[in-house]
Parts: sequence; structure tokens; C-alpha cells
Amino acid sequence: MNIQLPPNHQWLPPAAMTAYLHEEIPLTKAMAMTCAAWDGTTATLSVPLAPNLNHADTAFGGSISSAAILAGYCLLYLLLRERQISNRLLITKSEIEYLRPIDADMLATACLPPEKDFLAFFDTLKRRRRARITLESHVTCKNLLAAKHTGHYVAMLY
Amino acid sequence: MNIQLPPNHQWLPPAAMTAYLHEEIPLTKAMAMTCAAWDGTTATLSVPLAPNLNHADTAFGGSISSAAILAGYCLLYLLLRERQISNRLLITKSEIEYLRPIDADMLATACLPPEKDFLAFFDTLKRRRRARITLESHVTCKNLLAAKHTGHYVAMLY
Repeated sequence: MNIQLPPNHQWLPPAAMTAYLHEEIPLTKAMAMTCAAWDGTTATLSVPLAPNLNHADTAFGGSISSAAILAGYCLLYLLLRERQISNRLLITKSEIEYLRPIDADMLATACLPPEKDFLAFFDTLKRRRRARITLESHVTCKNLLAAKHTGHYVAMLY
Repeated sequence: MNIQLPPNHQWLPPAAMTAYLHEEIPLTKAMAMTCAAWDGTTATLSVPLAPNLNHADTAFGGSISSAAILAGYCLLYLLLRERQISNRLLITKSEIEYLRPIDADMLATACLPPEKDFLAFFDTLKRRRRARITLESHVTCKNLLAAKHTGHYVAMLY
């Protein structure tokens, strides 16, 4: 297993990530979630308000949570996929703090973890075919931080 | 504000709670979530697997999280509604541990908190028109515990 990218590598287009989400996790389609950006270090999901409303006409906590969980999931999926590492990812623990009501479309973003954590994760995955990693993600609305999420994920090699 | 139930009180039928969820939080309809039981102390939501699948053909973490958040929400909503207390409820923090994959329909259940917490919550709500409460909920599949959730909620009087 090599953590370097293949030569002449091109990032997976966000539309392909969206298609994967809608195909594999049908609730993302009901949420009208799309992958808005992926540049090799940051994954961003876009979630419109309308299908994710709650009783207070703001975003439903479960939708915000789902977006934050999937931002971390997509980041990890893409980091591994771009390195041609076949794997299965699952979330084992999720903690989210809702900081303000979301009254418009939201973005959920996860960034590359500190390099040492990322390298330790790859190293463990290579040695044991299974590794755990903790990723932070955040949800913004109108450029304001609206929720902070910590996700604990496990990756298993096929 | 009286925390006693009105005379000759009858519990809200689960079908009415389901209708409220589908009307107020449309994602619950996409999840095919229904209220399965409410007896004045325990609220149970039922969530079929099919619309909540993930890439591993088990339940999506965001769906499990949504079910657990809403079990606590419904419990609190029903406890207040049955006492004719008009209020708005929001979740401020959610922590969930996924203990095993869910490969069939699931139930999410929240029970009345310890009586002293419940009375303190009512007392604060009466005095300050706003009160916080922490509720535990759990998700089971085929009678096995599959996820444990802690939700922090805030209630505001209208």
C-alpha cells in the first residue's frame, strides 16, 4: 500500500462523489445533498434547507448530523480511493454540538487531519488491515459556524 | 404550569405523533419513520431499514442518529403536550455510539429521565420560561442494543 497518489492523478469530480452518495446512501438523495468540492485535502457537502426542515423552520438536527458525519466519511473515502485502496468505512461514534439555528442552505466540511494522525492511520491500516481515525467536521450557514462535529471512523481493507 | 396530567387524560395515539413528525420534519417521511408506542413514560420510534441503507447494506449512521435524536425529542414533546404546555424544543448537543451494524428494521426508544431531573426541568421551565434537559435514548435491532445516544435539549415556553 502506497500513500502517494498515482502519477498524473486527477481528483474525482464532485459530481461523481454525489452520484456515489445517492446510489449507496439513498437518504442523501432525499436530503438533496451534493458534494460541492473536493481538492485532495478538503471535502465539502452542500445541503439545501427545504427537504431538511424541522418544526421550527430551521434545519433538523438529524440532517445536520448526517451532513457532518458524511463530510468526514467522504473525506476518508476520497483520500483512500484516490490512492486506489479498496476499503469499507464505518462510523463508530459521533458527537455534534449545534451552535446556532440553520435557516438557509448549509455546507458541511471536513479537512485532512494532522499529518502524523493521517500517516499513523495509513500505517495501521497497512499492518492490520483495519484502522481507526478521528475527524473533525463543521457545518456552516451564511458563512457562520453552525455546528461542530467529531466523528470516529474505522476503515477496513477489502 | 402544572406538571399533573389533566383529569380523564388519554395518551396521544402513536399515529397522531407519526403524522406530526411527517408534517413538521419531512425527512422522517423519507425515512419511513413511525411512532410505534407511547405510554406516558416511554416513546418508541420504528424505522425500516430499506430507505435508511448505507454503502455496506446496513443502516446509515445519520439515520440511526436521527432516530435516536427524535426518540428523545418525541418523549419531551409528548411529556409537555400531555400537560398542555405549549413549547418549542431544540437539540443542542448529540452524542451517539454505534455498537453494532444494523441489518434489519430498528427501534429507537427514550424513557422518562430520573424524577428529580424531570421535576427540576419543569421547575426551571416555569421560572425562566426556558430549561435544559439531558435524555438518554437507545436504538435496538432484533432485540439487541445497537446504539446508545445522549441528547441535550432545550425547551422554551411560547
